[in-house]
Amino acid sequence: MNKLHIPPLDEQAAKAALEHQKILAKPPLALGKLEPVAIQIAAMTGNPAPRLKNKTVVLFASDHHIADHGLSLTSTDVTYIQTRNFLQGGGTINAFTRNAGARLTVVDVGVNYDFGDLPGLVKRKVMHGANDFSKGPAMTREQALECLQVGIDIAREEKARGLDIVAAGEMGIGNTTPSSAIVAVLTGTPVETVTGRGSGVKGEVIRKKIELIERGIALNKPDPADAIDVLAKVGGPEIGAMAGLMLGAASLRVPIVIDGFIAGAAAAIAQGIRPEAARYFLGSHNSAEPGHKLIMDHIGVTMYMDLGLCLGEGTGAALFFPVLDAATRVLSEMKTLPELDITVPR
Amino acid sequence: MNKLHIPPLDEQAAKAALEHQKILAKPPLALGKLEPVAIQIAAMTGNPAPRLKNKTVVLFASDHHIADHGLSLTSTDVTYIQTRNFLQGGGTINAFTRNAGARLTVVDVGVNYDFGDLPGLVKRKVMHGANDFSKGPAMTREQALECLQVGIDIAREEKARGLDIVAAGEMGIGNTTPSSAIVAVLTGTPVETVTGRGSGVKGEVIRKKIELIERGIALNKPDPADAIDVLAKVGGPEIGAMAGLMLGAASLRVPIVIDGFIAGAAAAIAQGIRPEAARYFLGSHNSAEPGHKLIMDHIGVTMYMDLGLCLGEGTGAALFFPVLDAATRVLSEMKTLPELDITVPR
Repeated sequence: MNKLHIPPLDEQAAKAALEHQKILAKPPLALGKLEPVAIQIAAMTGNPAPRLKNKTVVLFASDHHIADHGLSLTSTDVTYIQTRNFLQGGGTINAFTRNAGARLTVVDVGVNYDFGDLPGLVKRKVMHGANDFSKGPAMTREQALECLQVGIDIAREEKARGLDIVAAGEMGIGNTTPSSAIVAVLTGTPVETVTGRGSGVKGEVIRKKIELIERGIALNKPDPADAIDVLAKVGGPEIGAMAGLMLGAASLRVPIVIDGFIAGAAAAIAQGIRPEAARYFLGSHNSAEPGHKLIMDHIGVTMYMDLGLCLGEGTGAALFFPVLDAATRVLSEMKTLPELDITVPR
Repeated sequence: MNKLHIPPLDEQAAKAALEHQKILAKPPLALGKLEPVAIQIAAMTGNPAPRLKNKTVVLFASDHHIADHGLSLTSTDVTYIQTRNFLQGGGTINAFTRNAGARLTVVDVGVNYDFGDLPGLVKRKVMHGANDFSKGPAMTREQALECLQVGIDIAREEKARGLDIVAAGEMGIGNTTPSSAIVAVLTGTPVETVTGRGSGVKGEVIRKKIELIERGIALNKPDPADAIDVLAKVGGPEIGAMAGLMLGAASLRVPIVIDGFIAGAAAAIAQGIRPEAARYFLGSHNSAEPGHKLIMDHIGVTMYMDLGLCLGEGTGAALFFPVLDAATRVLSEMKTLPELDITVPR
């Protein structure tokens, strides 16, 4: 992790993109927030006219034994059932990545099930579900580091296949619970403020969820200044792998679209490990989870779509890919004011 | 106009879509606002599993002689220059429709320029620019009706080519001025509340714009209860054709995505003529123009994206096409809970 080189943004490319954007054949600033976002992508990629042809959602699947307390609407079997479903094309993220012309890569990093020979699955299982962190650490520090490395490795593999923009998605019954724990610890916010309905649970279950998270934090004492410690003690395998993917993508100058609450928690872990990684983050949508805005503000990204999603899988990021594609297309596909002989007073 | 049959929404299709949506393999309501919007599209199209394969932006171009007072950042020549540019593929709307896999149809309904033989241009010119409505009506009632008919005709022509969803876009230097006038009259709001920067003009010019609109309304006395009267007296050709397109699309059960401020004014005209047309309206984004939210509330649509756009051309609607595409794809591409043998308590 410490050896990973995360390059600075390319200010030259950003400046060139901005100069070009200023003379495009449209009223100044008429594209609103899409204008700075296109410049950000130029700065990240080092290309003043970036194109987002190769888009990928990497979905990491894992279980969480804390969910055995009944914190989710469905049984924990759903993690492996849905992981299998994603490989057969029948999930929401399949529809959304097809829609965006994006690849979907599915990685088992901690599912409590042995898939056997499942075509398409990337097998990088670190454990059979995170341990119940209300009773002890979710993972050892070694396991947490291994999960991070899985993500870094996948970023490199995806880059080798062609990668212009990436998002980390997840499947893991119960994974809003470790995410709320991470967000509470890293932002110093009371657990109840950042704990929501997850898959759609109500009153009594939310109270139990809050109590288990508070107990887990009190017991394990994660150190907010050590993001790997937080990940290990109250996180989970897919959150670690997502953070690793973000670190790996940042090291490769690949823009990373941050999806919902769990991706936000993973991004905060990545940023905690290497603050420079956040240079490569882009926000996407407002999730319905109550801690989402807090963690997005913490990692410093803007949200652009207000769709009330709370699904995970990388769905919100996949919905935002075409908007980002459009924002960058203007830098290479539009005529300029001088080309059209139009004069605009400055 | 009065003979146009606008069918009711198909409640059967909506019910079937909703029943299917409830058993899709995801947590209940996890797709937030995309769930009701998919049901709306089912109700509009009469198809419980609608697909938005054929997407079109119809861009109507026109001039406005009120802009001769210097209300825009650029000269009025820009209307014809940009119209030509759109036919050559170099405008923002070209990049955005290509991005969305959508067609772009460009119609001259009132440009103050004779294009001669320009490949691809749909020639339906009603006049050489709307008259200066600070001195008299922008159009005669006959001209306004002719513009509406252009839009209705184009809706039918596009439907014949295959049309699953449509948006009306525009190019017309000065056209936020008639739009502000329409919005002020139809909603009974003070002119200054609904008058903004348009192409990016400032203080003194905005004050002149407000004064000219107020003078035009006082002089022409448009009747808020007669939307055709409002369109004729303080509107313009492209706004009439956009409203006509919306009426035509509604009669053909084609969902209409409402773009920005000018499209909002056109939608309010369409709704004023035939209130049932609004059944087929869908909102898209929050424009930066100050009267945008007011007119969107007036026509009764929800906005989903907060991008700060104020460009027109149909750009915001084109950006939203892929999101709508994704929202409807889930109805036909996802596995259901029973298919995956997942139980969710109700």
